[in-house]
Amino acid sequence: MLVEKNLIEFIDEVKSSNPTPGGGSVSALVGGIGGALTNMVGNLTIGNKVYDQVPENVKEKMEANFKEIENSVEKLVKIIDEDSTAFDGVMKAFKLPKNTDEEKKARSQAIQEGYKEALEVPLRCAKECLNLLELQEVFATHGNVNAITDVGVGTLLAYSGLEGALFNVTINLKSIKDETFRKEIEDTVNTLLTKGKATKEELLKVVYERLG
Amino acid sequence: MLVEKNLIEFIDEVKSSNPTPGGGSVSALVGGIGGALTNMVGNLTIGNKVYDQVPENVKEKMEANFKEIENSVEKLVKIIDEDSTAFDGVMKAFKLPKNTDEEKKARSQAIQEGYKEALEVPLRCAKECLNLLELQEVFATHGNVNAITDVGVGTLLAYSGLEGALFNVTINLKSIKDETFRKEIEDTVNTLLTKGKATKEELLKVVYERLG
Repeated sequence: MLVEKNLIEFIDEVKSSNPTPGGGSVSALVGGIGGALTNMVGNLTIGNKVYDQVPENVKEKMEANFKEIENSVEKLVKIIDEDSTAFDGVMKAFKLPKNTDEEKKARSQAIQEGYKEALEVPLRCAKECLNLLELQEVFATHGNVNAITDVGVGTLLAYSGLEGALFNVTINLKSIKDETFRKEIEDTVNTLLTKGKATKEELLKVVYERLG
Repeated sequence: MLVEKNLIEFIDEVKSSNPTPGGGSVSALVGGIGGALTNMVGNLTIGNKVYDQVPENVKEKMEANFKEIENSVEKLVKIIDEDSTAFDGVMKAFKLPKNTDEEKKARSQAIQEGYKEALEVPLRCAKECLNLLELQEVFATHGNVNAITDVGVGTLLAYSGLEGALFNVTINLKSIKDETFRKEIEDTVNTLLTKGKATKEELLKVVYERLG
């Protein structure tokens, strides 16, 4: 499993001419690290001296978001390996026989199904990264100011995970013939990207303000 | 060493209440992965079928950049661990005695030196990430179009490594009293960020165009 490789081995695997692990797995990893950094900021805030100055209702939100981020990181970690097999269905479908018209039709359908399944993985990654960005807000505003740079890096990473995963949704979408499905996913991609960009900008604004 | 940890262990270390590894080490890692992804695109281009369509002078540049990116990734991998000890000098200086005026002066000088040394590591990381972004251009324009999403993710990561590292330069800079030094580094930070943003935007434009 990819997640059992050490950093040097993982980087070597990425570098190799094997297309997996590629941008999809990497997007999930990077989003996960971004979430973990925000958890660190939580650990340097919740229950620490600085926590006394955080209003009670914010404390509640911060602690709830901390747990949600932990879950989100776990989901992203799973996607690291999932993404590297997401395309297997498409590859398998391409190898189906195409001697008769019936076989051709079945093969074409299987390929189309394969693409739809393949893009579900990065789409899930992108949604999780947007979720992370939204959960990070309370740490940007009320987290330990000594760790504000870590909130900043966490923001950059959750956003990179989002846009990176959406690249992979879009490239798979190009092979899909089902117009309705394509339009629906295109709209989702645009919404996720627009929301993600806006949330990232807001977060970075707070980070730069608190960084002084 | 951090680079010997597997992905799950590394994510756990980031999450912990220990401030290292934090955003600094993570920025170097992310930049390194971005470079490795671009090397993968190189491996899926150079010597492959698609390579026949690449003009000769571009081939030369692509092969030279491929090697430079390999070096750059190696440098960034080293920074992952270096960054987590970069602040040790500051911590050590803070523990120096401060009983006499002389001791106070020596301690204060040592703290200042510590901060200067501490920011050198993320500054080097940021410069290396800008270098990466510039080296990626030939892969965005002439790399295998089937791997264009990987160029996109590589771009996002090299940029995140750059801006993330600069956060860490800036936070250390705030403690430095030497006006001339501070002004000089502030100018460098602004130049790196401006160049990095512009290069990232150009690269992403090409990626989205080729993604279609």
